[in-house]
Amino acid sequence: MSHVTSLSCILCGREHAPSQVLYTCPSCGPDGVLDVLYDYSALSGKVFPGKDVFSLWRYKDILPVEAEREVPPLRVGWTPLYAPQRLRATLGLSALFLKDDTVNPTASFKDRASAVGVAVAMALGKEPITCASTGNAASSLAGICASQGIETIIFVPETAPRAKVVQLLMFGARVFTVKGTYDDAFDLSMEATRLFGWYNRNTSYNPYLLEGKKTVSLEIWEQLGEKVPDRIYVPVGDGCIIGGVWKGFEDLRRMGRTDRMPALVGVQAEGSSAVTRAWETGVLPEKTDCSTFADSISVGIPRAWRQAVRAVKETGGEMITVSDKEIAQAMGILARESGIFSEPAGATAFAGILKSHRAGTLDSASSVVALVTGAGLKDIDGAARACTSQAVSLEPHVEALKEAVREGSLRHS
Amino acid sequence: MSHVTSLSCILCGREHAPSQVLYTCPSCGPDGVLDVLYDYSALSGKVFPGKDVFSLWRYKDILPVEAEREVPPLRVGWTPLYAPQRLRATLGLSALFLKDDTVNPTASFKDRASAVGVAVAMALGKEPITCASTGNAASSLAGICASQGIETIIFVPETAPRAKVVQLLMFGARVFTVKGTYDDAFDLSMEATRLFGWYNRNTSYNPYLLEGKKTVSLEIWEQLGEKVPDRIYVPVGDGCIIGGVWKGFEDLRRMGRTDRMPALVGVQAEGSSAVTRAWETGVLPEKTDCSTFADSISVGIPRAWRQAVRAVKETGGEMITVSDKEIAQAMGILARESGIFSEPAGATAFAGILKSHRAGTLDSASSVVALVTGAGLKDIDGAARACTSQAVSLEPHVEALKEAVREGSLRHS
Repeated sequence: MSHVTSLSCILCGREHAPSQVLYTCPSCGPDGVLDVLYDYSALSGKVFPGKDVFSLWRYKDILPVEAEREVPPLRVGWTPLYAPQRLRATLGLSALFLKDDTVNPTASFKDRASAVGVAVAMALGKEPITCASTGNAASSLAGICASQGIETIIFVPETAPRAKVVQLLMFGARVFTVKGTYDDAFDLSMEATRLFGWYNRNTSYNPYLLEGKKTVSLEIWEQLGEKVPDRIYVPVGDGCIIGGVWKGFEDLRRMGRTDRMPALVGVQAEGSSAVTRAWETGVLPEKTDCSTFADSISVGIPRAWRQAVRAVKETGGEMITVSDKEIAQAMGILARESGIFSEPAGATAFAGILKSHRAGTLDSASSVVALVTGAGLKDIDGAARACTSQAVSLEPHVEALKEAVREGSLRHS
Repeated sequence: MSHVTSLSCILCGREHAPSQVLYTCPSCGPDGVLDVLYDYSALSGKVFPGKDVFSLWRYKDILPVEAEREVPPLRVGWTPLYAPQRLRATLGLSALFLKDDTVNPTASFKDRASAVGVAVAMALGKEPITCASTGNAASSLAGICASQGIETIIFVPETAPRAKVVQLLMFGARVFTVKGTYDDAFDLSMEATRLFGWYNRNTSYNPYLLEGKKTVSLEIWEQLGEKVPDRIYVPVGDGCIIGGVWKGFEDLRRMGRTDRMPALVGVQAEGSSAVTRAWETGVLPEKTDCSTFADSISVGIPRAWRQAVRAVKETGGEMITVSDKEIAQAMGILARESGIFSEPAGATAFAGILKSHRAGTLDSASSVVALVTGAGLKDIDGAARACTSQAVSLEPHVEALKEAVREGSLRHS
């Protein structure tokens, strides 16, 4: 990890050598999340050397990875940044962009974090890797580890949907279904790291995960012709994605590639809005029940809330909330008007854009990006809630077809 | 479509002007499937001009598409060709490759066909577009059409799984669930084209779909450094994918880019093997019931069987069959050893490679490619059949974790 110069605690600001600390600040404990720092002056004059690499590894010089063998072979990142003409016209937003992370190998944004996390684990010689998750973090970890032959042990609450457990088992992960909540699963994964030394991939505990997430910002910047957009809307559950988006632009700024930051807008489900309240009050609310069908951002204890609030405040952005109904509507509009089929959390940033647009707070010419973070096939029940039409039953005869066409709005061509 | 010079009937060899014929040979009827031909001598000296386009549109010069506005905006094609080191070592196949088409926008190979089909429909000013399908063809058509704002009308048998219908509805497709079989749905879609002029996307009826499918071969050739591999294994249901793979290499040959063809190996499920029998006997068997859990290649009447048999015979390849058990095993090995989670049909080509390998008919140094054609998230029930391990239930206490680790094979790091 020679690219990394130090790990800086977001609470006390103390810097640690990467060889001395694996996870959080020894002085501040688990809350002392560490920022990964590089020799930015050495990087400032450089063109990214991986220009012909079409994955997040094009940014290897500013990632905590050195050797080629540590780079997992699956193609993670360098996902499309779409300029959706139909949506632009419908909404009157002439510089709207959609960053489609549904086409990553395990169909979510989290592959970015897992790819870098696994590379670091290999560099450190750490195995197995463990995490607690009901969803995208676990499946991406299991998939990336499968490509490298690394053992994975996942803790999920027993309520985890069968589809997600099946996907983990297919990748060869060891899966513990914990008779309890997500927080019980989280605690056990932390205990496992303490007791057995298993390398821990949990969000905002392992400092290197954010480094994978930040690559989405480097890509957006490059795909816009090395320009920073005006606003980026990001779905927020525990806050680590928006923290990663901030880190990417912050690294560009430190490298002298830009002198401005995009306004980062965090979008939460109304039923799971702890980070929004922390942004408003400066204090994280006591753990509350959370209820939203956007399961990937349904989080009672957001462990990266400080990074999320920093990202929003330092960039002049804001936190907003949207209802489940608004999320479902956004899923439908996104699929019907752009051809991107997202899971509920994946459409939440776009739901935020629709809300800002309705409120009249979006300039029609400003460049606005929505992160689309997970594929719709991950949650068919969620999608069923977003369908606005139904299939029509038909007898297998031409007459029935003619009748249906006469009655319906189907046109003759 | 000025790139296209003529449409040539695979039965009578007669050539038709593209402006005169929409679907099949007027003399031979529905069986007279048409090959799309180009001015190969004009193309022979050219470097593909789309070298900096990272989608199938890099081959636009040899596709039936002209104007930029006809090109759907979703990023279809230019999927990874993996050199899976772990699988290579395990199997002793030093030049094994996996072409991962699960990362297309709607998560299947069929996006290639739909992208080109929709572009042609736009060039012709044809709308709506219809097709009969229970699966990937329909979802890809609906997704690509959504990105272009084109109306889609899909006929599915009433037994179609809910997940697939939900995905179609999300993309805004009109869906008819036909009270009958797939063949009833197919017939109704053909009637709809005849009665109402809806543009028909059905496989091996519309000549341009194969042109999209052929792009996988152009990509493999380029990704191997403009070299033709020794063997390509392709899943076969109705036979149109392997027909497309053949067409891609045939076009390269006609352009003078290569003088050899890869041996094409078609792999069918034992329970749905009509094309294999047609290859053996020269005659398509009477329609038989088909039974395989690989639903995407479960086909009673394979409508592109002639193209499939031609592809195999002209390249010195073969047709082989694999059992559902072998397909399930292949899904597991693929996921665990390479990190690619495929649907059953998506792992069928790889199952064929495993079978050839066991039979000792594969040279360990020959370059062998498996097409992986669809994502595992499309069929969680199918994946559940392929799981070889189970999740372990755990009480939410450290002592239970310690106990489980002592009993299991989980290691201390």
